[in-house]
Amino acid sequence: MTDETVSIQGMVCPVPLSHNDRIVMGHGSGGRMSHNLINRLFLNAFDNPALSASNDAARIQIDSATSLAISTDSHVVAPLFFPGGDIGRLAVCGTVNDIAMLGAQPLCLTAGFILEEGLELSVLERVVLSMKAAALEAGVQIIAGDTKVVQKGKADGLYINTAGVGSIPPNLDIGGQLAVPGDTVLLSGPIGDHGMAVLSARGELGFESDIQSDVAPLNHLVAAMLEASTRIHVLRDPTRGGLATSLNEIALQSGIGIIIDEESIHVSPSVNAACEMLGFDPLYVANEGKLIAIVAPNDADKILAAMRANPLGKESTIIGRVVEKPAGRVLMKTGLGSTRVVDMLAGEMLPRIC
Amino acid sequence: MTDETVSIQGMVCPVPLSHNDRIVMGHGSGGRMSHNLINRLFLNAFDNPALSASNDAARIQIDSATSLAISTDSHVVAPLFFPGGDIGRLAVCGTVNDIAMLGAQPLCLTAGFILEEGLELSVLERVVLSMKAAALEAGVQIIAGDTKVVQKGKADGLYINTAGVGSIPPNLDIGGQLAVPGDTVLLSGPIGDHGMAVLSARGELGFESDIQSDVAPLNHLVAAMLEASTRIHVLRDPTRGGLATSLNEIALQSGIGIIIDEESIHVSPSVNAACEMLGFDPLYVANEGKLIAIVAPNDADKILAAMRANPLGKESTIIGRVVEKPAGRVLMKTGLGSTRVVDMLAGEMLPRIC
Repeated sequence: MTDETVSIQGMVCPVPLSHNDRIVMGHGSGGRMSHNLINRLFLNAFDNPALSASNDAARIQIDSATSLAISTDSHVVAPLFFPGGDIGRLAVCGTVNDIAMLGAQPLCLTAGFILEEGLELSVLERVVLSMKAAALEAGVQIIAGDTKVVQKGKADGLYINTAGVGSIPPNLDIGGQLAVPGDTVLLSGPIGDHGMAVLSARGELGFESDIQSDVAPLNHLVAAMLEASTRIHVLRDPTRGGLATSLNEIALQSGIGIIIDEESIHVSPSVNAACEMLGFDPLYVANEGKLIAIVAPNDADKILAAMRANPLGKESTIIGRVVEKPAGRVLMKTGLGSTRVVDMLAGEMLPRIC
Repeated sequence: MTDETVSIQGMVCPVPLSHNDRIVMGHGSGGRMSHNLINRLFLNAFDNPALSASNDAARIQIDSATSLAISTDSHVVAPLFFPGGDIGRLAVCGTVNDIAMLGAQPLCLTAGFILEEGLELSVLERVVLSMKAAALEAGVQIIAGDTKVVQKGKADGLYINTAGVGSIPPNLDIGGQLAVPGDTVLLSGPIGDHGMAVLSARGELGFESDIQSDVAPLNHLVAAMLEASTRIHVLRDPTRGGLATSLNEIALQSGIGIIIDEESIHVSPSVNAACEMLGFDPLYVANEGKLIAIVAPNDADKILAAMRANPLGKESTIIGRVVEKPAGRVLMKTGLGSTRVVDMLAGEMLPRIC
């Protein structure tokens, strides 16, 4: 593997990882190119501990009693509407989930709209009503907003940024850097639905499909898990870059290895069929209503039971465990009994999935 | 004045105010069309007291000791660089200032980038370093971020959303609804520089000009004012829609009238010349480093002195006073001794100014 070509899942990705002088679609993939851009440019310039922790949300201490989780996400999904969701539902759930991944409950959201001249108001209204419904579902209010309009051809219908503030329960510390060898790795359900639902809405599957996005607010699921046990070390929602990329991020942050069991990771038959046809590995396909939990092994069963009792976690499974070595790597035991390295997504796979 | 044509500053604006079935540039102007869109669509759907207060930032109570100011702004200014600033400086200052308008000091910012495929990395780096410098100037950290990439032709270089959280000092209540008859209206300096600087960068002035944007973080100025007196009722930074629109917003929120004195409102000779050539009224041109303060009359002099002692307020003046009637209206005594109604910006004047 060199800087010039990157082999991933047997394919060669033509996009170099460094020395780019221009932004390419891969910089928005959520995989290694995104990480490199973030590390080299943003973390370097905006250097501070909350940002450098590189979790889904930043943690800040307001006073001795109050810690807040703060996060932001811009949403540029195309098309705006897809089976199971739309850009509005995604914008609310994306930020609610980032906040929930610190164990926090959302206090409020902000919403910034960039509208393209010529956008039908009825489309905007549908999106706004979907945001309203998703916010109600999550139990959060949208308390501040902003609207900008750009000329026709300078956006793609509309883009939505949401930022959110959540309240972290006292004495709770959850973060990607806190996995320790021996921990159990849980996953809240089958993977790949969101990414393939968006592709299907684009007509890129080439066949009819019943795939629905899993986009949903995970804060109530997280609350139920914390009710069962607070010995949850890491929470992460595997969005862009999929399960494989999120697990790699955690392995790097915690300096540990993760071994997962292929057979315990579920993929619906429709998603599986679509991935096979298109040559995608579901491990790299985005989810918007799933979470990974890395927990103390003795409490894994009761946390799993709490997950399964929640509608958004009813297909939860134990998918693996944390090991000391190889540090920073993710290995997978395949159905055939072999073990393979599961790398981070390198270049571009599914642009504008969220 | 009908729904179909709107007379403003003697010009007829061809854009109807209602029954639009599509987004037009005027919906992003910050004037009446923006207000109508926000009121009819967003406030209606996301109904909650913090949002409906319609201040630059929302106020939320975290616990008995802590109130936060929360705000968001997306930035789509074109071009990305202009005399005196750039989209990065604007993105930091815009949100810092919105937070400061509740009397709060910023605790942290988030930054969400939407990048157009093909953007030169050196451009992005310049913008990020400018954000870093502006954040340092304001004394705030950027603690969470997000990067999305859209295909070439689906954005215009880059767009930046910032959201921010600030801490409101205990027992302080500042908001657009709190002006009372008798209050004194202060303005922190000459108006119109930002808007005309952006126009000049677009080459739309048709002549060379030394106009520089006033874009700057106002939180330290606000802190100095609060040090002088906490009897500040309203703070607002007159951005899109200019001084005239901001004063009208306050008049409507507080249900009072405002009388301003034309001769006390300063406009630099360069801005004045440019406005005259292009037929703009500086009262409607955006500022990004100015504030309006409406204060208890007995404390106006000491607040004015504190403003003048700060580099960002050294040309501050008393520009008017709050009256009981006409409620919801702004009147201006002209240099010729007559009084005229100053309305809110109706349609579109300067697109993509911030």
